[in-house]
Amino acid sequence: MEFTAKVIADLLSGKIEGDKNATVSSLSKIEEGTEGTLSFLANPKYLKYIYTTKSTIVIVNKDFKADKKIHTTLIRVENAYDAFAKLLNYYKQQKEDKTGIDKQASIAFDAIIGADAYVGPLAVICEKASIGKKSKIYPHVFIGENVEVGENTIIYPGVKIYPDCIIGNNCIIHAGAVIGADGFGFAPQQASDYAKVPQVGNVILEDNVEVGANTTIDRATLGSTIIRKGAKLDNLIQVAHNVEIGENTVIAAQTGLSGSTKLGKNCMVGGQVGFAGHIKIADGVKFAAQSGIPSDIKKENEVVMGYPAFNYTKYQKSYVYFRKLPDLVNRISELEKKIKELEGN
Amino acid sequence: MEFTAKVIADLLSGKIEGDKNATVSSLSKIEEGTEGTLSFLANPKYLKYIYTTKSTIVIVNKDFKADKKIHTTLIRVENAYDAFAKLLNYYKQQKEDKTGIDKQASIAFDAIIGADAYVGPLAVICEKASIGKKSKIYPHVFIGENVEVGENTIIYPGVKIYPDCIIGNNCIIHAGAVIGADGFGFAPQQASDYAKVPQVGNVILEDNVEVGANTTIDRATLGSTIIRKGAKLDNLIQVAHNVEIGENTVIAAQTGLSGSTKLGKNCMVGGQVGFAGHIKIADGVKFAAQSGIPSDIKKENEVVMGYPAFNYTKYQKSYVYFRKLPDLVNRISELEKKIKELEGN
Amino acid sequence: MEFTAKVIADLLSGKIEGDKNATVSSLSKIEEGTEGTLSFLANPKYLKYIYTTKSTIVIVNKDFKADKKIHTTLIRVENAYDAFAKLLNYYKQQKEDKTGIDKQASIAFDAIIGADAYVGPLAVICEKASIGKKSKIYPHVFIGENVEVGENTIIYPGVKIYPDCIIGNNCIIHAGAVIGADGFGFAPQQASDYAKVPQVGNVILEDNVEVGANTTIDRATLGSTIIRKGAKLDNLIQVAHNVEIGENTVIAAQTGLSGSTKLGKNCMVGGQVGFAGHIKIADGVKFAAQSGIPSDIKKENEVVMGYPAFNYTKYQKSYVYFRKLPDLVNRISELEKKIKELEGN
Repeated sequence: MEFTAKVIADLLSGKIEGDKNATVSSLSKIEEGTEGTLSFLANPKYLKYIYTTKSTIVIVNKDFKADKKIHTTLIRVENAYDAFAKLLNYYKQQKEDKTGIDKQASIAFDAIIGADAYVGPLAVICEKASIGKKSKIYPHVFIGENVEVGENTIIYPGVKIYPDCIIGNNCIIHAGAVIGADGFGFAPQQASDYAKVPQVGNVILEDNVEVGANTTIDRATLGSTIIRKGAKLDNLIQVAHNVEIGENTVIAAQTGLSGSTKLGKNCMVGGQVGFAGHIKIADGVKFAAQSGIPSDIKKENEVVMGYPAFNYTKYQKSYVYFRKLPDLVNRISELEKKIKELEGN
Repeated sequence: MEFTAKVIADLLSGKIEGDKNATVSSLSKIEEGTEGTLSFLANPKYLKYIYTTKSTIVIVNKDFKADKKIHTTLIRVENAYDAFAKLLNYYKQQKEDKTGIDKQASIAFDAIIGADAYVGPLAVICEKASIGKKSKIYPHVFIGENVEVGENTIIYPGVKIYPDCIIGNNCIIHAGAVIGADGFGFAPQQASDYAKVPQVGNVILEDNVEVGANTTIDRATLGSTIIRKGAKLDNLIQVAHNVEIGENTVIAAQTGLSGSTKLGKNCMVGGQVGFAGHIKIADGVKFAAQSGIPSDIKKENEVVMGYPAFNYTKYQKSYVYFRKLPDLVNRISELEKKIKELEGN
Repeated sequence: MEFTAKVIADLLSGKIEGDKNATVSSLSKIEEGTEGTLSFLANPKYLKYIYTTKSTIVIVNKDFKADKKIHTTLIRVENAYDAFAKLLNYYKQQKEDKTGIDKQASIAFDAIIGADAYVGPLAVICEKASIGKKSKIYPHVFIGENVEVGENTIIYPGVKIYPDCIIGNNCIIHAGAVIGADGFGFAPQQASDYAKVPQVGNVILEDNVEVGANTTIDRATLGSTIIRKGAKLDNLIQVAHNVEIGENTVIAAQTGLSGSTKLGKNCMVGGQVGFAGHIKIADGVKFAAQSGIPSDIKKENEVVMGYPAFNYTKYQKSYVYFRKLPDLVNRISELEKKIKELEGN
C-alpha cells in the first residue's frame, strides 16, 4: 500500500509543507526513519532528529518551529501524537481488510458464517458453529462444534477453540492460543493412579477481550470459565478451569491462574505471577511480576509482591534486610561477644 | 444431543419422580441450572438450590427428603455424585464419538490407520506412522514419520509430534502440545558462538498419560525422554531432553524440567516450579508452586518450597521472620544501644 | 535408512574390526544399545558396557584396548566422540533431506519459493512472501504477507509468522512458535477500559538463530523486535515488543522479557527468568534460573540470582541466613533476656 502526503493530510485534516506527492508505504520511528516511511515528532526529546531523519514525511504539531533547514515533507496537525495513533489504526485496518471464504477452508454444512466475514485457507469450522459479521478466521484456525464467535472478532492463525465455547464481539485472539481444552481434574484412585474427571463446561470470552499468542484457557468442569469484557491477556498465560477474570483486568505474559480463582475488575497483574486455586481477589489489586498469591486479597487497590506475596512496600523493606543478612548476623555475634564480656565482669 | 429422564434413569438404574419425558441437552451446576440442563445434589451445602433451580432434571440420593415443593424432575440413585460422574463420562463420550478418515486429511501411502480410528480434516500423517484402533486424530494434527500412536488415544487439534516418537494407549494430548522437538543442546565454539548438538533420540509416552495444551516435551539427544504410565501434565509445561517422569506423577501448569532430570513416582508438582538439570527426585515428593529445585531430593514423600527449595514447614517459618525483618533489625539496634550504655557504666 | 559398517567407516575414515556388512538403522547410548543400533565409547566411565552392549556397531578411539572378548563390530577412529558427533549430523541431515512443494500447500501466486526448498502439505504462504534456497517449510506453517525467510532455514510444523517479519539464513524455528503477534500495548481510557495501541512494527531474526517450540516473539509497536545472529532461545519463552537480544546469547525455557528490554551479547539466561521492561543488560551476564531482573545491569559478565536479583554469591550467602532465621531470632531473644538480667544488676 502506498499513500501520498495529500491523502494523509486529508485523512488527518493536516497542512502539507513540502512535496504533496511524496509517497510512503510504511511507518517508522523518527530516529530510525528510512526513505518511503512516515514518522511523527511529538516529544521535544526527539526534536534533533527532524533535521537528520530520512523519513519521507513527518507529522508535527501545528505550532512546531524549525531552527534549521528541514529536508523532509511535513504535515502539520493539531496533535502529532494523536494523529499518528489515528494513522496507525488506519494503516492496520487497511492491511487486514480481508473478507470472503477461501475455497481451501473446511466448513461444516450447518456452520453459519456472517456477512463480510473472512475465513482463510485450511481453517476448520465444525458443525453448528457460527461466525459473526465481519469477523476474521485466519488459516489453520480450528473452531469446534457449537462454538459461537461474535462480530468483528479477529482469530489469528492456528488458534484452537474446543466445542461449545463462546467468543464475544470485538475480541482478538492471537496465534496458537487454545481456548477450551480440558481443565486439569483427576480423582485419586486406590491403586495410586488417577481417574479423569470429565470437563463438560465451556469458556466464555465477553466483548473486547484480547488473548495473547499460545495462551491457554481451560474449559470449566461444569459451568463456565469466564473472561469478562475488556480484559487483556498477554502471551503464554495459563487460565485454569472455572476461573473468572474481571472486567478490564490486564495480565502480563506467563502468569498462571489455578482452578476456580476469581480475579476482580481493573486488576493489573505482572508477568510470571502465580495464583493458587479457589481464591478471590478484590478489584483494582496490582501484582508485581513473579509474585505468588496463596490466598484471598480483600483490600481493593492493594499492591503486592513476594513469594508468597504481601504488601509491596513491606516486601521491599524486608528484602533490603534480606540482602544485609550477613551483616545482621555479624552484629548479633558481636553482641553475643560483648554480653559474654559484660557477664564475665 | 438430547436425553429424556427415562433414558438417564435407565442408564443410572435410578427412579424417576416427575416427568418421564423431560428432556435435557447439557449439564449444569444446580445453582446455575437453566432449562434443558441436568444437575445433581450431593453436598448438603447446596440443598437450598433444589427448591429454586431451573434445571429440568436433578439427580439426588435415594434417601433425599424434600421439605418444600420441588418443581423439577428428580432421579433418585444410590449415590448422586457417582451417578453424575458416570453421566459426565457418558456425555463426553457421546459428544466425541467420531470415527472415519476425513477426505481432507493428508495421509502417507504407507501410514497405518487402525480400525475405528478418526482422522480429522487437514491432519497430516507422515510416512510409516501408525495410529492404533479407536484413536482420534483431530484437525491440524501433525504426526511425523515413523511415529507410533497406541489405541484409544485422543490427539486434539494442532498437536505436533516429531518423527520417531511413541505414544501409548489411552493417552490424551491437548491442542497445541509439541512432542519431540529438539532438545536445547549447543556446544560453545572458540568464536563465542555455538554449534548445534543434533538431537536424534525420541519421546516415549507410556499408557494413560495426559498432556496439557501447548506443553512441550523435547526429544532426547540420544535415547528417550520418557513419561511413565499414568503421569498427568497440565498446560504450558516444559520437559527438556532426556527427562524421565515417574508413574502417576502429576504436574501443574507452567512447570519446567531441565535436561536429564528424573522425577520419581507419585510426585505432586505445583505450578511454575523449576527443576535444575541432571537431578534425581525420590518417589512421592510434593513441591509447592513456584519452587526452584537445584539438587537431588532423596527423602521419599518430602514436601518442599522455596527458591531454592527446602522443607516446606521450615520455609514457612523462615518466611514468617523474613516478613518481620525490619522488627528484628530494630531489636538488634536496641540491643546495641543498651550494650553501649552498659559498657559505659 | 540402513547403513553398513563399511559405509560408516568410509564416512569417518575409520577401521572396521568385525563384520563389514553389519547394518544399523539408528543410534543409541552404549548402555542402552539394542540390535541394529550404533553407539560410541569415549568416556572411560562407560568402558564396562563395551563387553555387554547389544549395539551392533560401536565407534571407539583407535588406541582402545579390550581386556575381554567383544561381541560387537568396532570401528576405530581418531576421536570417537567427534566421529559420533559427525555421524549424528549426517544422520539428521539424511532424515530431513526433503525438497519440493507439496500439492496440498496453499501458496499465493506472487510468493517466491527458492530453489531446492521444501514446502510441506497444508502449509500456507501468503502474498509477496519469499522463501530462500534450500529452506524447509513444514506442514501447517503459516507465513504471512511480505515475510522474508532466508536460505537453509528450517521452520517446523505449525509455526506461525505474522506479516512483514524477516527470518535470516540457517535459522531453526520449532513447532508452535509464534513470530510477530501484536505486542501487549493498551492505552488506559477514562472509562477504566483500554484502547489498543496498534502494533505496526515487525520481528527480525538474524542468521543462525534457533527458536524453541511454542516460544512467542512479539512484533514491535514501531520498528523491530530483534534477535541478533547466533542467539538461541529454548521453548515457551516470551519476547515482548521492541526487545533486542544480543549475538550468541542463550536463553533457557520459560523465560520472559518485557517490552523494549535490551540484552547484551553472550549472555546466559536460566529457565523461568523474568526481565522488567525498558532495561539494558551488559554483555556476558549470567542469570540463575527463576531470577527476577528489575533494572539495568551495567557490569559485564556479572552473575546474578534472586527476586529481585543481585550478585549470585551474595544471594547465596543471604539465603543461608534466611534458612537460619528462626535460630537468629532465638539468639536475639536470648540476648534480650541477658541484657535484661544485666540491666537488673
